[in-house]
Amino acid sequence: MDLFGFLNLNELALGLSQISLFPFFDMAHYIVSVMSLREQPGALEVSQRSPLACWFSSMLYCFAGAILSALMMADAPIAPLSNTTNLLLATLMWYVVFYCPLDVVYSLASIFPLRLVLTGMKEVTRTWKVLGGVTQAGKKYKDGLFVMIAVGWAKGAGGGLISNFEQLVRGVWKPETNELLKMSYPTKVTLLGAVVFSLQQCRYLPIQTHHLIFIYTLFTVTNKNEKWSDSR
Amino acid sequence: MDLFGFLNLNELALGLSQISLFPFFDMAHYIVSVMSLREQPGALEVSQRSPLACWFSSMLYCFAGAILSALMMADAPIAPLSNTTNLLLATLMWYVVFYCPLDVVYSLASIFPLRLVLTGMKEVTRTWKVLGGVTQAGKKYKDGLFVMIAVGWAKGAGGGLISNFEQLVRGVWKPETNELLKMSYPTKVTLLGAVVFSLQQCRYLPIQTHHLIFIYTLFTVTNKNEKWSDSR
Amino acid sequence: MDLFGFLNLNELALGLSQISLFPFFDMAHYIVSVMSLREQPGALEVSQRSPLACWFSSMLYCFAGAILSALMMADAPIAPLSNTTNLLLATLMWYVVFYCPLDVVYSLASIFPLRLVLTGMKEVTRTWKVLGGVTQAGKKYKDGLFVMIAVGWAKGAGGGLISNFEQLVRGVWKPETNELLKMSYPTKVTLLGAVVFSLQQCRYLPIQTHHLIFIYTLFTVTNKNEKWSDSR
Repeated sequence: MDLFGFLNLNELALGLSQISLFPFFDMAHYIVSVMSLREQPGALEVSQRSPLACWFSSMLYCFAGAILSALMMADAPIAPLSNTTNLLLATLMWYVVFYCPLDVVYSLASIFPLRLVLTGMKEVTRTWKVLGGVTQAGKKYKDGLFVMIAVGWAKGAGGGLISNFEQLVRGVWKPETNELLKMSYPTKVTLLGAVVFSLQQCRYLPIQTHHLIFIYTLFTVTNKNEKWSDSR
Repeated sequence: MDLFGFLNLNELALGLSQISLFPFFDMAHYIVSVMSLREQPGALEVSQRSPLACWFSSMLYCFAGAILSALMMADAPIAPLSNTTNLLLATLMWYVVFYCPLDVVYSLASIFPLRLVLTGMKEVTRTWKVLGGVTQAGKKYKDGLFVMIAVGWAKGAGGGLISNFEQLVRGVWKPETNELLKMSYPTKVTLLGAVVFSLQQCRYLPIQTHHLIFIYTLFTVTNKNEKWSDSR
Repeated sequence: MDLFGFLNLNELALGLSQISLFPFFDMAHYIVSVMSLREQPGALEVSQRSPLACWFSSMLYCFAGAILSALMMADAPIAPLSNTTNLLLATLMWYVVFYCPLDVVYSLASIFPLRLVLTGMKEVTRTWKVLGGVTQAGKKYKDGLFVMIAVGWAKGAGGGLISNFEQLVRGVWKPETNELLKMSYPTKVTLLGAVVFSLQQCRYLPIQTHHLIFIYTLFTVTNKNEKWSDSR
C-alpha cells in the first residue's frame, strides 16, 4: 500500500509537471496581480485619472518577472508585448478588475474561497517561472549557480523587486524601503525556490525535477493560503 | 484638374518621403531640443555649474528616442555616440545655445518666425523616427503590433518618456508626475502616429507609406505650430 | 647610463603590463571598495538590518564598472555573477569587513600604511579596467572614439557613476547631486584615463600601450595616495 501511495504521488507529480499554464493559470496570475495593484493606496485614483499609467502599471505587475530577467540577461525587455494572446488576456483582466460596471468582477474575485483558489493557481505559475528562469540562465551560463539563482529569483519575484520603479509610474516614490531591505514573504519564498531549483539543476540535490516541482508547489500553495492577505 | 491635383500631391508626398534629414532637419531637431532644455527651470544654472551634466542632459534630449528604443530592443544604448558626425553636430548646437557670446544664437532662434520654421522641421524628423522605430520593431517581431507601437512611440517621444531620469542628471527629481500620468501634447501625437504607422505596416490600413508620411507630417507640423510654446 | 635607465624603465613597464590582477590586486580592490561602502553614513546599520541589501550594495561597489559597461554595450549585466571565483572572493571580503569578530579585518586594513598599499593596488586595477573598457568598445565600434571614452570611463568609475542607484538599494535617495553634477576626484582621473587610452588606441597618441599603462598607473597611484581619504 505504501508503494501504491508512492506511485500515485509520483504520477500526480508527473501530471502536475505537464499541465499547461495557458489559459487558466495565466489568467489567475493576471487577475490576482491586477487585484493586488488595485489594493495599493492611490491606485484607484490613478485608474480614473490616467488609464494608460494604470494599464502600464498593471502590465508591470503581470510581466515584471519576464521584464526583469530579460534586462538581466540582455534580452529585449519588450518581448512580453510580442506575445499578443497573453497581453490581451492581461489587458482584459486589467479592464474588468478596474472598470467593470458595479465592480462585479473585483467583488466576486474577492470572496474568500474564490480568492483562495485564484491565489493558489497564481502560486502554481510561480513554480514554473522560477524553474523557467533557472533553466534559461543555466543554458547561457553553464553551471553558473549564482546566475541561475538570480535569474530564477528575478523571474519569480520580479513584481516585488522592481516595485520602487513600478510605483514611480503611478507617481509614488518611496526610496526609504525596497524588497532587498525588507523582503516580503513571497519574495523570500521565491528566493528559497530559486536556490533549491538551481541546486537541483546543477545536480547538487538528488531529486527529480517533477518531484521538486510537486513539493515546492505544494509548499507555496499551502503557505500562501495561510497568509493570503498579501497576494503579490 | 482633380486628377492633376492628386498627381501633384502624390509627387509631393513621394518627394517628402525621400528627403534626407541630414544635416538641416537633424540640426533643427538638435537646436530646438537644446533650446527646450535651456528653458527648463534651473537648466541655465546647471550649464554654469557643471557643463558636463548640461552636455549629457542635452544629448539625452537630442538622442532620447534612440537610447530608449535601444534599451527596449536590447540594442546598445551607447550606439548614438558612435555616429560621430551627428554627435558633433548636436554638441555644436549645445555649445552655441548655451555658451554663445551675447546669447546671439538663442536670441535669434527664439524670434517667432524662425522658431516656427525650426519647430516645423523638428516635427518632420519625428515622422521619420516613429516610422523608423515601427519598421525596426516589425523586422524583429513579425506582425508584433504592440511591440511596433511601443518602439515607434519610444523612438518618437523618448525625450518626454524618460524626462524623470533626464531631470535626475540635473539634480531635479519630480516623482509625482511623469509622461504616462499626464501626457504632454507631443507625446500624445507621437502615440497616435505610432498606432497609425503600425497599423499601416501590418496592412490594416489601406494606404501607401509615403501618403501616410505626408498626411502625418502635415498634421504634426500644422498642429505643433498652433501650440508651439512647448517645443519638446 | 641614460639608455640603461630607459631600458630598465621599459622593462618595468612591460613587466607591469603583464602582471596578473588575480587574486591579490582584485582582492585589494574588493576590500577597499567594501571598506568605502562601510564608511558611508548608515551602511553599518543596513549591514545589521538587512545583510542581503548590504551584500548587494557591496557587489555593486565591487562590480559596478562591469555592470554599467555591460548595460551600455547591451551585454548581460548579470555576467559578473557568472565568474564564481571572483564573486566568492568579493563575498568573502564583504563578510570579513562587515562581520569579522572584534572588527579585526577592518581595523587592520584601516591602519595608514596598509591602507596606502591596498589603495595603491586598487588604483592599479583601475588602469586595467579603463583599458579593458576602451578596447572592448573599440572592438565593437571601430574607431568610435566617443564610445571608447564612455565605456572606458564607465568601466573604471562605475561605482561613482551609479552611486545614486547604489544608495537606493540601501534606502538612501539623494537626487540633488550625482557624479556628473559634481565629479569626485577618482571619477575625474578615470575620465582623463579613458580619454588618453582611447586616443592612444585610435593611434592619435604616438606612445606604446605598456608605456601608457606605466605612466597612468604611476600617476593614479601617487595622486591617490596623496588624497587617499576618498577611496572609492
